[in-house]
Amino acid sequence: MEEIEEAERYEDYAVVLIAHGSKLPYNKEVLKELREMMERRGLFKTVRMAFMQLNKPSIDEVIRELVSEGMKNIVALPVFLANGAHTTEDIPNILRAVRKELAESGRKDVRIIYGEPIGADERIVDILIDRIKDAIG
Amino acid sequence: MEEIEEAERYEDYAVVLIAHGSKLPYNKEVLKELREMMERRGLFKTVRMAFMQLNKPSIDEVIRELVSEGMKNIVALPVFLANGAHTTEDIPNILRAVRKELAESGRKDVRIIYGEPIGADERIVDILIDRIKDAIG
Repeated sequence: MEEIEEAERYEDYAVVLIAHGSKLPYNKEVLKELREMMERRGLFKTVRMAFMQLNKPSIDEVIRELVSEGMKNIVALPVFLANGAHTTEDIPNILRAVRKELAESGRKDVRIIYGEPIGADERIVDILIDRIKDAIG
Repeated sequence: MEEIEEAERYEDYAVVLIAHGSKLPYNKEVLKELREMMERRGLFKTVRMAFMQLNKPSIDEVIRELVSEGMKNIVALPVFLANGAHTTEDIPNILRAVRKELAESGRKDVRIIYGEPIGADERIVDILIDRIKDAIG
């Protein structure tokens, strides 16, 4: 019952998972897997991935695509461990430009919400301890 | 009983949590908190933090310090979401130089184990969903 209510609560939301981007394939691979895992939770209308730099699709491309599909509530989430220049300056600047572009094209009904990075969390400690145990073998 | 056995298993290990480093304070703050959380688990002899660049202490400084304290089993763990040039080239190069330095000074009894980054994990998805819910409010 609680699960149904929760799914109803977020069913109009699209999520954009934003990563840094890299010349090597690993950053994109991990983001892709996280996206698939989150999509499988079935909580949001759709979950997409986007990259700040070096990989495609870009953040603005993905948001334009979601708007063209009729999404009005978009959560842009930085998949970063901690805040830094990318999450406090670069990504907000991109979102600001997209919001301006949408407003100028008459789409004032679209809301882009920006979230916080992962941060210090006991679940991260759990994962790190697993990685340490794996390394020790 | 199982907990006691586990603590005994890892009591001779020191852990070095390695982050990227940043001109802004957030990266160091998050690593500091993760270090404290892990120290509180009481699983390893000691847990230290180190930075690849921009912040102190550096990786080689921390490892030298641990060796001078008598630690012989050191796990160096990249606190990164995914592999990239930093985890596959930069940090391994630093560890290689430290291992060489230790071997040349006759400390062939010190073992430096390098671990894997966080990667795609359902617990990361759990955290990201919490951050999305917080952002929606």
